[in-house]
Amino acid sequence: MLKTISILVDNEAGVLARVTNLFSRRGYNIDSLAVGTTDVPSQSRITVRVDCDARVLEQIIFQVGKLVCVHKVKVLESDSQVSRELTLIKVRANAAVRGEIIQIAEVFRARIIDLTPEAMTIELTGDGGKTDALLDMLRPYGVVEMARTGIVALDRGLASISDSPYIFN
Amino acid sequence: MLKTISILVDNEAGVLARVTNLFSRRGYNIDSLAVGTTDVPSQSRITVRVDCDARVLEQIIFQVGKLVCVHKVKVLESDSQVSRELTLIKVRANAAVRGEIIQIAEVFRARIIDLTPEAMTIELTGDGGKTDALLDMLRPYGVVEMARTGIVALDRGLASISDSPYIFN
Repeated sequence: MLKTISILVDNEAGVLARVTNLFSRRGYNIDSLAVGTTDVPSQSRITVRVDCDARVLEQIIFQVGKLVCVHKVKVLESDSQVSRELTLIKVRANAAVRGEIIQIAEVFRARIIDLTPEAMTIELTGDGGKTDALLDMLRPYGVVEMARTGIVALDRGLASISDSPYIFN
Repeated sequence: MLKTISILVDNEAGVLARVTNLFSRRGYNIDSLAVGTTDVPSQSRITVRVDCDARVLEQIIFQVGKLVCVHKVKVLESDSQVSRELTLIKVRANAAVRGEIIQIAEVFRARIIDLTPEAMTIELTGDGGKTDALLDMLRPYGVVEMARTGIVALDRGLASISDSPYIFN
């Protein structure tokens, strides 16, 4: 089952390596990972999506929470989170098919962020399923390359990672 | 100087750890990192932004390109890339200030993706500067928490990471 884990860490060289090593050494397979700064300059937030059962999830939280570079760990429940992923997709598009692709992009509320005589780059935000659906529509035209950010997620409402009790260091 | 490096890797457990370890061991400070799947299921794409000079950049490309799990490495030039980052920001918002915050979001073309009597969550895509500007506007209301994905970037036009000559393994 896919679980979303938010981790508040020190914004320092080596911290991301320590967290990813922990997952790697124990063979936990990361489905997606995103890391970025927060409104506190000294802290970064890592969002990891892992495919695991409840028992393994408990182990992961305990192990991550023991790292000294980690301030908070929180598991976001699927029914009380908003989650989004950003995808850039470059597709072959000459004048003959450009109109069709623009129509598809509009349906998905995607934005066209680059256009040349031979190619078009499309930006989409959404959950994973929406991205896959757009990709299926674009594949017949020829997907040149793509880049996905991995999922980021926040709890709905006023709850935040600061409320989380999980920390063991 | 901030450099954007795209790395095409095997979609396997431990690969992300190997890449982040390389940066960590050599003390290269990662400014942002995003990893996600590609249109080829067996491959993931890592986008790293590093603050370094030309000499260090050359070393990084060489070291990353030697890893057996790496298929391609490419440095994206700032004048020929499109880059985007996704940010979720949760801000305190009661009925009295909700209208003001909605107006701010509209100016930044941000989307409101969650709304409760006390809080609002806003989704923004853009480069880092746009995110910082929105954050500055929202801070007076009280930023509860935020999550950024890190930058993803593609070359403009038809060029793709597959054209890159950098691989040493």
